[in-house]
Amino acid sequence: MQQKRKIINDPVFGFINIPNDFVYGLMCHPFVQRLNRIRQLGLAAFVYPGAQHTRFHHSIGAMYLMDEALRHLREKNQEITPDEYNGALAAILLHDVGHGPFSHVLEHSLVKNVRHEEISLLLMRQLDAECKGKLQTAIDIFTDRYHKRFLHQLVSGQLDVDRLDYLRRDSFFTGVSEGNIGSARIIKMLDVRNDRLVVELKGIYSIENFLMSRRLMYWQVYLHKTAIAAEIMLTNVLQRAKELVQNGENLFASPALSYFLSKDTDLGSFEAEGEALDYFVQLDDNDIWTALKVWVSHSDKVLSVLSNGIVNRKLFKIEVTPEKQPEEKTRMFIDKFKREYGLSTHESTYFVSSDIVTTNMYSEEDDSIDILYKDGTIKDISTASDMLNIELLSKKVEKYYLAYLRD
Amino acid sequence: MQQKRKIINDPVFGFINIPNDFVYGLMCHPFVQRLNRIRQLGLAAFVYPGAQHTRFHHSIGAMYLMDEALRHLREKNQEITPDEYNGALAAILLHDVGHGPFSHVLEHSLVKNVRHEEISLLLMRQLDAECKGKLQTAIDIFTDRYHKRFLHQLVSGQLDVDRLDYLRRDSFFTGVSEGNIGSARIIKMLDVRNDRLVVELKGIYSIENFLMSRRLMYWQVYLHKTAIAAEIMLTNVLQRAKELVQNGENLFASPALSYFLSKDTDLGSFEAEGEALDYFVQLDDNDIWTALKVWVSHSDKVLSVLSNGIVNRKLFKIEVTPEKQPEEKTRMFIDKFKREYGLSTHESTYFVSSDIVTTNMYSEEDDSIDILYKDGTIKDISTASDMLNIELLSKKVEKYYLAYLRD
Amino acid sequence: MQQKRKIINDPVFGFINIPNDFVYGLMCHPFVQRLNRIRQLGLAAFVYPGAQHTRFHHSIGAMYLMDEALRHLREKNQEITPDEYNGALAAILLHDVGHGPFSHVLEHSLVKNVRHEEISLLLMRQLDAECKGKLQTAIDIFTDRYHKRFLHQLVSGQLDVDRLDYLRRDSFFTGVSEGNIGSARIIKMLDVRNDRLVVELKGIYSIENFLMSRRLMYWQVYLHKTAIAAEIMLTNVLQRAKELVQNGENLFASPALSYFLSKDTDLGSFEAEGEALDYFVQLDDNDIWTALKVWVSHSDKVLSVLSNGIVNRKLFKIEVTPEKQPEEKTRMFIDKFKREYGLSTHESTYFVSSDIVTTNMYSEEDDSIDILYKDGTIKDISTASDMLNIELLSKKVEKYYLAYLRD
Amino acid sequence: MQQKRKIINDPVFGFINIPNDFVYGLMCHPFVQRLNRIRQLGLAAFVYPGAQHTRFHHSIGAMYLMDEALRHLREKNQEITPDEYNGALAAILLHDVGHGPFSHVLEHSLVKNVRHEEISLLLMRQLDAECKGKLQTAIDIFTDRYHKRFLHQLVSGQLDVDRLDYLRRDSFFTGVSEGNIGSARIIKMLDVRNDRLVVELKGIYSIENFLMSRRLMYWQVYLHKTAIAAEIMLTNVLQRAKELVQNGENLFASPALSYFLSKDTDLGSFEAEGEALDYFVQLDDNDIWTALKVWVSHSDKVLSVLSNGIVNRKLFKIEVTPEKQPEEKTRMFIDKFKREYGLSTHESTYFVSSDIVTTNMYSEEDDSIDILYKDGTIKDISTASDMLNIELLSKKVEKYYLAYLRD
Repeated sequence: MQQKRKIINDPVFGFINIPNDFVYGLMCHPFVQRLNRIRQLGLAAFVYPGAQHTRFHHSIGAMYLMDEALRHLREKNQEITPDEYNGALAAILLHDVGHGPFSHVLEHSLVKNVRHEEISLLLMRQLDAECKGKLQTAIDIFTDRYHKRFLHQLVSGQLDVDRLDYLRRDSFFTGVSEGNIGSARIIKMLDVRNDRLVVELKGIYSIENFLMSRRLMYWQVYLHKTAIAAEIMLTNVLQRAKELVQNGENLFASPALSYFLSKDTDLGSFEAEGEALDYFVQLDDNDIWTALKVWVSHSDKVLSVLSNGIVNRKLFKIEVTPEKQPEEKTRMFIDKFKREYGLSTHESTYFVSSDIVTTNMYSEEDDSIDILYKDGTIKDISTASDMLNIELLSKKVEKYYLAYLRD
Repeated sequence: MQQKRKIINDPVFGFINIPNDFVYGLMCHPFVQRLNRIRQLGLAAFVYPGAQHTRFHHSIGAMYLMDEALRHLREKNQEITPDEYNGALAAILLHDVGHGPFSHVLEHSLVKNVRHEEISLLLMRQLDAECKGKLQTAIDIFTDRYHKRFLHQLVSGQLDVDRLDYLRRDSFFTGVSEGNIGSARIIKMLDVRNDRLVVELKGIYSIENFLMSRRLMYWQVYLHKTAIAAEIMLTNVLQRAKELVQNGENLFASPALSYFLSKDTDLGSFEAEGEALDYFVQLDDNDIWTALKVWVSHSDKVLSVLSNGIVNRKLFKIEVTPEKQPEEKTRMFIDKFKREYGLSTHESTYFVSSDIVTTNMYSEEDDSIDILYKDGTIKDISTASDMLNIELLSKKVEKYYLAYLRD
Repeated sequence: MQQKRKIINDPVFGFINIPNDFVYGLMCHPFVQRLNRIRQLGLAAFVYPGAQHTRFHHSIGAMYLMDEALRHLREKNQEITPDEYNGALAAILLHDVGHGPFSHVLEHSLVKNVRHEEISLLLMRQLDAECKGKLQTAIDIFTDRYHKRFLHQLVSGQLDVDRLDYLRRDSFFTGVSEGNIGSARIIKMLDVRNDRLVVELKGIYSIENFLMSRRLMYWQVYLHKTAIAAEIMLTNVLQRAKELVQNGENLFASPALSYFLSKDTDLGSFEAEGEALDYFVQLDDNDIWTALKVWVSHSDKVLSVLSNGIVNRKLFKIEVTPEKQPEEKTRMFIDKFKREYGLSTHESTYFVSSDIVTTNMYSEEDDSIDILYKDGTIKDISTASDMLNIELLSKKVEKYYLAYLRD
Repeated sequence: MQQKRKIINDPVFGFINIPNDFVYGLMCHPFVQRLNRIRQLGLAAFVYPGAQHTRFHHSIGAMYLMDEALRHLREKNQEITPDEYNGALAAILLHDVGHGPFSHVLEHSLVKNVRHEEISLLLMRQLDAECKGKLQTAIDIFTDRYHKRFLHQLVSGQLDVDRLDYLRRDSFFTGVSEGNIGSARIIKMLDVRNDRLVVELKGIYSIENFLMSRRLMYWQVYLHKTAIAAEIMLTNVLQRAKELVQNGENLFASPALSYFLSKDTDLGSFEAEGEALDYFVQLDDNDIWTALKVWVSHSDKVLSVLSNGIVNRKLFKIEVTPEKQPEEKTRMFIDKFKREYGLSTHESTYFVSSDIVTTNMYSEEDDSIDILYKDGTIKDISTASDMLNIELLSKKVEKYYLAYLRD
């Protein structure tokens, strides 16, 4: 029996109805509730103080857009069975469940080489077992094994509801208002041909706008150099902490964080469905911040300087260049830090990092945005748009970062 | 002495302060007050019912952005004298004063070959005479004869406050939210080198977004085919009215409209500073609508059918194609309308029109958007942006319209 | 057969779907299209330049809220038949169809003692005849003869969708953001008991906020003294025009306006379904503005001074007092204007007007807002709210205005 | 020398300029940076998932409004010296610096009987010592010892910028849009008479709206029963933790949290400027959440059940009544929990709590909102407003809560 209808007040989309008890049940599961304690934009709040919104909030928003999209497709006489409807809603609600705190950082420090999508899938399978196979369709959609491939495209594709939600939401909470996209208009333009999503021709300007807004948000927010500097510091401090712990040093940390500091985990550790996954779902932003604050007073200079830098916003200085900077510059900094802090060469390397960020905003290989003409022809956006240089959009853009401790 | 400070409540920018009595005086002049009776988007309200905002409201908004821009440039140590400050504010406040009702239509029917900028200038000169030369700097800025050329660029250039206001404002009132641009961010990125505007490099994404939003607004709003259909009808009905009047028919019209129906005016008529200009400043949207409503009952079939179509929203059907449609199609329609309405060939041509719309969104020849690098280098956006295909953006895009009376 | 689904882009509520062809047909009727040419807030645009939105736009918004309200009531298991659904939508879409331009002014000058609701009803009946009785339910709901009385309450009551729309819309377009109300929240709290609307107890704060926001909008917008000053001038100029015409003077005016200037109409004239109603539906804002602009040059001093004042925003000075000002003050102004303009006493009275504005924001007698407690009890808001002094809210507030020509 | 100008992107107010280096220096201090890790609305995010904004963000917003207010007062020829300007900005920036995580909860569990204002003052004094007396004016303003008392009123009064910011900000982030207030309009209406703030008469509707919106936000957000239920649970779990620690149990906690669990602190402990204050500034939301997650697996039933309830959103059921519920009901629950969980009577009491919430929204005794009439008279809002029942608004409203573990 349907419980009393649940409604969530969302400043971005207004009131969001939770469509049924199945979906509500998933929302209440500890795996999903945990996303309430992981910020969507990680350390970007150093630049945009409003960007405190959580992965939970984003998941709810994406579910709302999925609901809207499925309704519209049904109105265009696309058949979507109740099982497919629930499957698609569950898939999007759970798509980020494998994210750890500061996901990108974590994948470079604590859980190397384990991608969050892989953990999401492991957790979905565990949930599926708990609820006796009710998530099978969701898992098939998520892993692109479901025959109506447009459902997977809505969860994860060039024009998925994930992106439609996060661009609007991140634009709203950061205040970067020109990142706003016309999610409602795009959804109205969606249709399905040969089991794949297409966009009606008259929606092409909204698609171009979407691609450009996404690009703007990348450089203005997601890859903002101050946020990158903070991420580099966090990566370095976690690597140092791991080194210290594995050398037998006793560091304050929550049990979950301790586990990942002391063990080297890989995908195998998670698939075994043993400790690694159990500890992982206990980990969130709070463990990291709590540890950092304690490490500020630790006797290890590297650990304390880096922790203090993050906690009290004394971030690395960062230079962005189109070409890699010469190695000597890095070595010069290492020498400087050795002298100034009395560190070994190895220790000094924690205070200077170079990194390369590559992005390509649109990749035809993975998936394409297909435009539907009035005569039924379908063309990829890169052919259909006379405006956007999709070739360039598809090209990897590389930027080189050099970040180092400020005086 | 400064009067009590005037404040205007603007839903787009919040409270707008009128900076001083000189500006307030201009705002109160009948030439500017008349803009209160001319809608910014003309017949686009057929598509977007919220788009009722006026050219007056836009002029106030553009003046606000000019004020913001000049303050920011002063903070960056660009000298702007009080005379230049007032001149730039006056120039932007008056830049649209030469617009007639449904400007584009008018220029194709009643005041052929007279551009609104030319009338704006004539009216500025008349105002200058009234206020004893106080508008000389404004006129110099408007006509690009002032040595600090960036002031002209702010009034009329690729990145002027005119565009910055109308894109945000039109986006706000139409509800096409993705047309929103980051006017505040762009203004913060402006600077001046060699008396010309430049944009700091880190503003490049906002500029790209601005150019794309502008393009979206063009196709989604300004050149929306329903609005074009209405404009074609209005052009035809005014041409028919003029023909009838000049053939001695007595048509209801206000004195100002009567004047332009009975006379063939050109720029010379206006420059003579005689009747033409006097009547012009009495003309606004109301004259046209009032006449159309009366013409609905006129005995001339062409006049009444077209008037009724506009007044009661029975608009031409319109086809948009990348190539011109064959002449036979037009001829077929003419034959059809001759039969159905018992009209002559000439009369029938009023019920079918082909048109071509050409746009180029960015024209380096006129002006350029210059990007300032950290090392002081300046590059045009078409070179600086790796993303936008400015060549394409600069290329004329042509669309062919065929519009005809619906059954 | 259902046509292609129509969607309207509304900056206030986003995309609005037109629910079916019946409703779409009504929207296209000349009676409703005419509302496109009548501004919702009349002369308030003198104060709030963004307030150009039309009665058509408001009617569409109110229809959207009606649709929302009916859906929610159905979800709460209130039966609403398809005929009732269409009837309620039609009733709200047509509820303002009897408004003339500057309605309040008109009712004090051209069509004395005829209320717009009465004309709306006459026009609905005419439409009903045109569409063969399909509007019978709408008319029954509008006139409160339908047994499910909550449908009438939604169209016209203390908490109708008319008010819910106009408060949000007027707040949006004026920029008086604090007038914003929680229309979505209020609609979610609605239910029906004994065929009458009730509001769930937990919605009480939203109701209090709604009542207070309405009050704020009254004093800040609807009864803003500058708007009142303009309305008084317009009333006076139309009365003077009527006097001149009835004395045989030839005044420029559209045929529709001429009709009402030369005839004294009352409800009977309209009910006869003859000329009066035919001319009325041809009248809109444009007729008034066009005439005023021509009258500026008329030889009658009273007519020209008042017309010029409105057209060029030289508005009456206005004093607002809690008590009526002494008669001598008016007489003093009359004497002054006689001398200065060489007018008769009678003519001078057009330049000075006193008026009284009375409002009561909540009237239990007409209708009440009923609060539903969890135990099923129902109490009127004036009993249920411990905060609002509903007695005071219900009390007539009187303000006295004295408006006169400025030097 | 002035550094490069700092700008913060705020989704509520747009770009916020940091006025000078003194203010920027304060913003960077660890005491203020710590507010980045304390959410403004604590556990209300359980109800409003968008409400993740921090006390830091609020402090910046309040500082922006202070800056606006001081500029406006200067334009009205109120003298405000540079020292007073900086003092007022510093006072508002630091006014919340004494807040701990979940402040209300903390004051009922860990730091009993120490109010956050007292800690704010202690921290300001410490900062003042660090920066050699530069904060003396700020402290005088904060403690209401400065002779221009309106500066204190702007920091802490019935109409302070603290409230003006938090109402708008909380409305924005929760999505309770009708809580929006006209902060810009109110600030424009402020003036000073006899060193005290007054509001111009025409601002009275905005003030009434402000008082009502504040009331709506109280019941709809701040005192939302689900948020109260969560706060009660958190109070209980912290009290239990303290009890266990003081009985020698070893509980996981960060050093800062450990300190407050093991010690009984009072204002004296803080004033001594020893450990208590040092540990306090290390405490934030993260310490609490991290501990709760670990305590979920603790062997103490009370601790683990409550911790799990908060972490996984299995909140107490809560009943709100106008009268206190009978003691037997509480006793009945205690008996029930004893049986079901095998607990002692004492332990069972942690699973059921009654509480009383009293609010009065306006207290003339503390301070008043004074309305300035055109003739110079000043009246308190409770006299000036004919609408608001200020007596009632000032009356303490009491609501009784009974909260207990769900089955």
